[in-house]
Amino acid sequence: MADAKLQIIPLGGLGEFGMNCLALRYKDDILVIDAGLMFPETELLGVDIVVPDISYLVENRELVRGIVLTHGHEDHIGGLPWILSELNVPVYATEFTLAYVEGKLDEHKMLDDTELIEILPGVKFTLGPFTVEPIRVTHSLVDCVALAIDTPVGVVVHTGDFKIDFSPPDGKAIDLHKFAEYGKRGILALLQDSTNVDRPGYTPGEWSVRPRLDEIFSRTKRKLFFSCFSSSIYRIRIALELAQQHGRKVAILGRSMVESSEIAQDLGYIDVPQGLIIHPGQINDHAPENVMVLISGTQGEPMSALSRASVDNHKHARIQPGDTVLLSSRVIPGNEKSIGRVIDHLCRRDAQVIYDDGSHGLIHVSGHASQEEQRLMINLLRPKFFIPVHGDYRNLKKHAELAKNTGVVKEAIVIEDGDVLELDGESAVRSGKVTAGRICIDSGSTADVVQDIVIRDRRHLSEDGFVLPILTINKLTGLVERQPELVTRGFVSGETGLMEAAREVVIKTLENSTAEEKADYGVIKEKIRIDLKRYIQKNTSRRPLIMPVILEI
Amino acid sequence: MADAKLQIIPLGGLGEFGMNCLALRYKDDILVIDAGLMFPETELLGVDIVVPDISYLVENRELVRGIVLTHGHEDHIGGLPWILSELNVPVYATEFTLAYVEGKLDEHKMLDDTELIEILPGVKFTLGPFTVEPIRVTHSLVDCVALAIDTPVGVVVHTGDFKIDFSPPDGKAIDLHKFAEYGKRGILALLQDSTNVDRPGYTPGEWSVRPRLDEIFSRTKRKLFFSCFSSSIYRIRIALELAQQHGRKVAILGRSMVESSEIAQDLGYIDVPQGLIIHPGQINDHAPENVMVLISGTQGEPMSALSRASVDNHKHARIQPGDTVLLSSRVIPGNEKSIGRVIDHLCRRDAQVIYDDGSHGLIHVSGHASQEEQRLMINLLRPKFFIPVHGDYRNLKKHAELAKNTGVVKEAIVIEDGDVLELDGESAVRSGKVTAGRICIDSGSTADVVQDIVIRDRRHLSEDGFVLPILTINKLTGLVERQPELVTRGFVSGETGLMEAAREVVIKTLENSTAEEKADYGVIKEKIRIDLKRYIQKNTSRRPLIMPVILEI
Repeated sequence: MADAKLQIIPLGGLGEFGMNCLALRYKDDILVIDAGLMFPETELLGVDIVVPDISYLVENRELVRGIVLTHGHEDHIGGLPWILSELNVPVYATEFTLAYVEGKLDEHKMLDDTELIEILPGVKFTLGPFTVEPIRVTHSLVDCVALAIDTPVGVVVHTGDFKIDFSPPDGKAIDLHKFAEYGKRGILALLQDSTNVDRPGYTPGEWSVRPRLDEIFSRTKRKLFFSCFSSSIYRIRIALELAQQHGRKVAILGRSMVESSEIAQDLGYIDVPQGLIIHPGQINDHAPENVMVLISGTQGEPMSALSRASVDNHKHARIQPGDTVLLSSRVIPGNEKSIGRVIDHLCRRDAQVIYDDGSHGLIHVSGHASQEEQRLMINLLRPKFFIPVHGDYRNLKKHAELAKNTGVVKEAIVIEDGDVLELDGESAVRSGKVTAGRICIDSGSTADVVQDIVIRDRRHLSEDGFVLPILTINKLTGLVERQPELVTRGFVSGETGLMEAAREVVIKTLENSTAEEKADYGVIKEKIRIDLKRYIQKNTSRRPLIMPVILEI
Repeated sequence: MADAKLQIIPLGGLGEFGMNCLALRYKDDILVIDAGLMFPETELLGVDIVVPDISYLVENRELVRGIVLTHGHEDHIGGLPWILSELNVPVYATEFTLAYVEGKLDEHKMLDDTELIEILPGVKFTLGPFTVEPIRVTHSLVDCVALAIDTPVGVVVHTGDFKIDFSPPDGKAIDLHKFAEYGKRGILALLQDSTNVDRPGYTPGEWSVRPRLDEIFSRTKRKLFFSCFSSSIYRIRIALELAQQHGRKVAILGRSMVESSEIAQDLGYIDVPQGLIIHPGQINDHAPENVMVLISGTQGEPMSALSRASVDNHKHARIQPGDTVLLSSRVIPGNEKSIGRVIDHLCRRDAQVIYDDGSHGLIHVSGHASQEEQRLMINLLRPKFFIPVHGDYRNLKKHAELAKNTGVVKEAIVIEDGDVLELDGESAVRSGKVTAGRICIDSGSTADVVQDIVIRDRRHLSEDGFVLPILTINKLTGLVERQPELVTRGFVSGETGLMEAAREVVIKTLENSTAEEKADYGVIKEKIRIDLKRYIQKNTSRRPLIMPVILEI
């Protein structure tokens, strides 16, 4: 039996939302679950995406047997290009998830170099000492799985993102029997999705939006713009069915929406009758009441099709008085302002805008389990140890309390990114830390890691701009050759003449410095920086970035 | 009777939330209602506050008779220092509002130069052709008024911010009788607060949080940190009463909280028994169960007392395991992340955190009228014309529809900042536009207007930093004296050697330029900028700010 301990090491997504990534290690074998990204907070200036710091995996590259993905959302697969560029290991995922992964790797020209292995719910596979059984779960996306991982010290179940949906539109319900079986045999640890731990009750199934959407279709007299997340395959399916039923042709706008519906069609998740889809250029060939436009941009992304349409800047999507725009989605925190702006523009065009403000009925449902579903899963599995995954610290903590209160788990343990949790059959002990953190990437290229110092500089620049005093020093004589120059951008001096006075400050600093100081460029730069900073701060209460430059001539 | 038209000209707050400011003009007299500020969206980098563009008032400075304030919130008075510095006119407000205004003007050293005139509910005063009667209304702040303005073409009522609270903690209920009287006589136009037009029903009164807060006091075994908006005088009053009742001494932390409670105490809005308040330094002299800390920082502001306490960085406020932190407030959109961060830190310190997540009962109430209150007011006043004020375009539009649907108004009209609405006794017609917009101010000083170009520069700098090629040109010979230098900050090159190669680009550009071009610094700078931009973009997909500098030596 087991002569060592199993280590559970979250590298992303515990203590924050997004960039989910977790390592399981037993002796000299590591299995990685998910490889997500996170969209940056606004204070990470100029950063496009954030991925987990995988130093720990890179240091142990010989031990990593593969990455297993639970489903195809960006916070579970979006970090793959970055991680694979550091660590070329096989990737295991279901058919639909692989389709998204392929698109992503193709974009980064990494598709040929990556081994992609398709997995199937119910079909076990082995990675070193780990035998993994994917179990079908339901979520807002299709073809999602939980993972039951048999290890030398016991079975670990990772739910991935899930809710309990007994009749999803594709008829592939969550496999509760399998969870029950595992529970009966007894499992060591359950890692469960914490996202909706704040919500009491059950999350409605994916079908449950259909009645209200049907009503909206019935009442809409002119063009209907239907917007949802492009990965909401079920929602797209329902929208297409309703369009067909209500005699509307469908034009699809927005790159992500087009790609996503093509994949879903190829893999049989949506079934499109001949002649339903029209080219966007044909919208005007049909009467407004006979058209639905499936359009991306629910979060008010400035370059999205919907955003552009809202300011009448889209070639094909003209929104006219009396048209209806339906946002079948939620507001992701942080996007309130941009979504609000788009809605305001749509209202100014006299469109009727239907969004999830509580007054329009059920037009969107969450993909994550609410409290009762979390309790149900815990009761089915009866794990010895419970570890909440996915969420801010307060979610994890609340989720651990919920698990403890079910009375069926021996212990509920909150760990965060970088913590190492060691389990044998009987105990679970936090033991030390590995490197974990966020890597900021500019413009999506994996080569473009942004250091903290760069972000600090950008923040500094973004607040008060910069002031650069430039000095020319004669290489031979060591004398200052001309009056210093001050160059500035993004800085408001408030009063005229300030820059002139600032220049005098630099001149005075030079005068008050010894020849020795002037010969040591490090010293003289720092003296100038400090004097100038003090002067500017006193006179303007501002702190531009000050960076003296010395040119030798 | 009237031989001219009345003009209603919103200058701020219509089509956006915040910086409320509206002008009424009749021939050569202008009356201004409110002078608010707005806190900037994150994309306005480095900007501290935003105020309305008052060019229209400045152009007509001889006609402006005064500014009348409805109440003391920042979005109604915060722009005063800026506006008064452009336009020194008398300011009319109630006692409590004036106390806030005085503090603000004192800070800007403008108190001595401003004429402040106290007004009283029910006591009319005259400004040119306008006779103004303040009418007491209820809100989340104390001493708030609506304004009934008798003009030559009829009575205009502006509600200010209001809700209908029949038993506020200070016993000063909304004066419904007065509104009924005006309604009976007949009014021309109603300008009504749109903020909560999305909410059905009635907004609960200020007292209604007391039972739930009382329970929280009862169940709290250790220190209680009570946080609310510092202007929530009623909430502070309730907190102090409960502290007294539950045997807790009170320490007050945070500058705004201290100032606000002092003003409220001076003006008799809160009554503090001898010995209730202790100095923050005395917190540890009392058992944890005998202390309440009234602390500012409900929005997770990074420098607030609560933020600092959450990371154990406050001299007096140490949060210990088992302490309770109560956020008796709402989340202002945009602040989710910063508030979430503070809550996470508090959870990590094992404090129990109670915030308005729907699971803690009524711990906060809005200060704005919900739909039924809006309908009630419209029915009482029966205005000919209805004009929604305060809110995004979609709020105004929805509010206009609500008013129309009551059946008692002749016309509901949506106008936005800068629109001129002309009324005679019978008609209301949009006629033209005046200048309106946002003025961005750095660091709160009225001298520090930030131009659009500066914000654009900062945004540019915040995304990719800067690259400054510096050239030295001999003044006499016109020759380039040394190799160009490239200085950069906030820019990630992605690959080593890029800056060296970029320098080669500059050298090549110089080589390929004629002597004439080199003599025209504007031309040569632009050539360098373009070549360098193209090179950097091609090799890094980035767009740092590029600003060639030429030094003559």
